[in-house]
Amino acid sequence: MSLLVIGTVAFDAIETPFGKTDKIVGGAATFISLAASHFVKKTNIVSVVGGDFPKDAMEMLKAHGVDLEGLEIRENEKTFFWSGKYHNDMNSRDTIDTQLNVLETFEPKIPANYQGCEFLMLGNLSPVLQRQVIESLHTRPKLIVMDTMNFWMDIMMDELKRTISMVDVLSINDEEARQLSGEYSLVKAAQKILALGPKYLIIKKGEHGALLFDKENVFFAPALPLEDVFDPTGAGDTFAGGFIGYLAETRDISFSNMKRAIIYGSALASFCVEKFGTERMVNLSDAELEKRVHEFISLVQFDISLVDA
Amino acid sequence: MSLLVIGTVAFDAIETPFGKTDKIVGGAATFISLAASHFVKKTNIVSVVGGDFPKDAMEMLKAHGVDLEGLEIRENEKTFFWSGKYHNDMNSRDTIDTQLNVLETFEPKIPANYQGCEFLMLGNLSPVLQRQVIESLHTRPKLIVMDTMNFWMDIMMDELKRTISMVDVLSINDEEARQLSGEYSLVKAAQKILALGPKYLIIKKGEHGALLFDKENVFFAPALPLEDVFDPTGAGDTFAGGFIGYLAETRDISFSNMKRAIIYGSALASFCVEKFGTERMVNLSDAELEKRVHEFISLVQFDISLVDA
Repeated sequence: MSLLVIGTVAFDAIETPFGKTDKIVGGAATFISLAASHFVKKTNIVSVVGGDFPKDAMEMLKAHGVDLEGLEIRENEKTFFWSGKYHNDMNSRDTIDTQLNVLETFEPKIPANYQGCEFLMLGNLSPVLQRQVIESLHTRPKLIVMDTMNFWMDIMMDELKRTISMVDVLSINDEEARQLSGEYSLVKAAQKILALGPKYLIIKKGEHGALLFDKENVFFAPALPLEDVFDPTGAGDTFAGGFIGYLAETRDISFSNMKRAIIYGSALASFCVEKFGTERMVNLSDAELEKRVHEFISLVQFDISLVDA
Repeated sequence: MSLLVIGTVAFDAIETPFGKTDKIVGGAATFISLAASHFVKKTNIVSVVGGDFPKDAMEMLKAHGVDLEGLEIRENEKTFFWSGKYHNDMNSRDTIDTQLNVLETFEPKIPANYQGCEFLMLGNLSPVLQRQVIESLHTRPKLIVMDTMNFWMDIMMDELKRTISMVDVLSINDEEARQLSGEYSLVKAAQKILALGPKYLIIKKGEHGALLFDKENVFFAPALPLEDVFDPTGAGDTFAGGFIGYLAETRDISFSNMKRAIIYGSALASFCVEKFGTERMVNLSDAELEKRVHEFISLVQFDISLVDA
C-alpha cells in the first residue's frame, strides 16, 4: 500500500495557560494519520500500545482509514505516556513525566501486507528504530520523510546522522536545525544538513512558519496568525502527516508539489493547535481544510509585475 | 512636495559578532531617505545635526535626492550619537551610550516649501514632536506613517497613544505591539491597536518577516532567509522608507498596493543588514533591488487551485 507511518501511539497529559487535561490520546503516528486521512484512503501504521489503550480510540483511528494490523497490542503492559506543561509563550515546554512503558522494548515489525509502500513517514523515535524500519522494507519507498528531535542529538548524534543520510526529506524545527548543524544562520544550517544526505529539508519555525530547502531552492510557508494557540502538542506531527499525505495522494514529489504539500500541512497544523490533543482533528472536515488553505493563499498573495527581473 | 520625512540624522557606533565600527553616519531619517530614493526623485527631511556632521555625508544625501532645507545645522553643538552592541542572535542589543546633543532641544520646523506634502513619514522620535509635525502642516497629508519604539511606551504611553490616534499606518515590532496592547497574541494585539485609530498596522518580526493588518485583512511578507545578518541597525527604518517611498511614487494607498510596498520595504531591509550602517544602501542599484524582489516572489509563490473555496 501507499503510505506507511511509524511512530508512537500514546497518552499525553497537557497543561497550557488555557487549561489542563487528564490522560488523552496522542502520539506522533496518531496525529500523522489523522492529518494524512484528508488525502489518502488508507494509512498503514506500525506502532505499539498497552492493554490500557482504549478500544474507542482504535475505532476512531479505523474510521480515519488507519489500518491497525501493524499496531502491536501488549495486553499486560502500559501505553507510552508523556506529560508536559507549556509556558506562556507556547514556544517552550517542560516535560513533567515520561513513562516509556511498551516503548522501552519496542521493535517495529512490518506486516507482509505493508511491504511495497511508496511513501514512508518516520515519526519521531530512536534513529536506530527508524533505520531498522527502512532496512526491513524489501523495496525502497519512493519517498522517505523523517522527523526527529533534539533529544536524539543529545544522546546519539552519530546514529542520528546515519539514519538522516538514508532519507529524502528531514523535518525538524529551527532550534534542532541549529543544534544538528552547529550553525546559527538557518541558510547555512540547511546547507550543512543537506550535505548529510537528504534531498530536502523542512525547518519548522512554529508560529513563524516553515522553510523548505533543496540545494538550489528555498520556499517559505507562513503560519496563519491565530488569536490563540490553545495547545501546540501534535502540531509538528500534523504538519508532517498533511505533507506526506498530500504527496502520497498526488504521487508527485517535485519541489513545486512539495510547496503545496507544505501549505496543506501548515493549514492542518493551524487547526491542531485550536484545541487540546486530537480534539480538533478528529472531526475536521475537508471543506474546513479547503477554506483554511484559501486563507493561506490570501495571506501571502501579492501581485508584482517585474519588467526587469 | 510629495514625501516628507521627520527623524534623526545621527552618528552610530556599532558592535556585532562580525566586527565593530567607529562613529558612522546613521539615524532614522537617513535610512528612510536612502530607501525611499529608489522610488521618489525628491525627499524632504526635517531633522537636526551639529557642526560635527560631515559635509560629504550631506552631499551623499543630496545625491540620493534628499532636500536639506529642513536639516537644521547647529554649528556649535554636536550631532546625536548612539552606540550599541548586538548579541549573538542579532535580535537583542544593549545600548552602550546615548548622547542626545542637538536632539535635546530639537523643535521640528517645517519649511514653507515642505507644506502640502502628500506622504508623511514620522521616524522614531518623541511622540510629542511627531504630533507637533502633524499639527504644523496646513493640510493633512494623504497618508501618515509612524514609527515608534518601546522607550516611548515606557515613559509616555498617553502621549504616544494620542499621536497614534492621528496617523494612518503604525509600524512597530512584535514586542512593541505586545507592550502597546497588553496582548501576547499578535492577532489580538492588532485588533486593540487598530482600535486606537490607525487604519493599518505593520508588525515587524525581524528575521521572521512582517504582518500588515487592517480591520478586515491580514497580509504576511516573509524576510529573505540570509546567510548572515551582519548589522541590523537601520533595517526597520529602511523597511519603512521603502514602504512609504513606494506608496508615494505609485500614489495608490489601497491594501493591495500596500502589500507590494511591504515586499519592496522587506527587500530593501534585506540589503541594509548585509553591511555596517548605510554602507550597503548608499550604492544599491535599482537592478539589484528588482532582482531581490524577484527572490521574494519565488520564496513565497505556490500554485494551488481550489475548486471548493
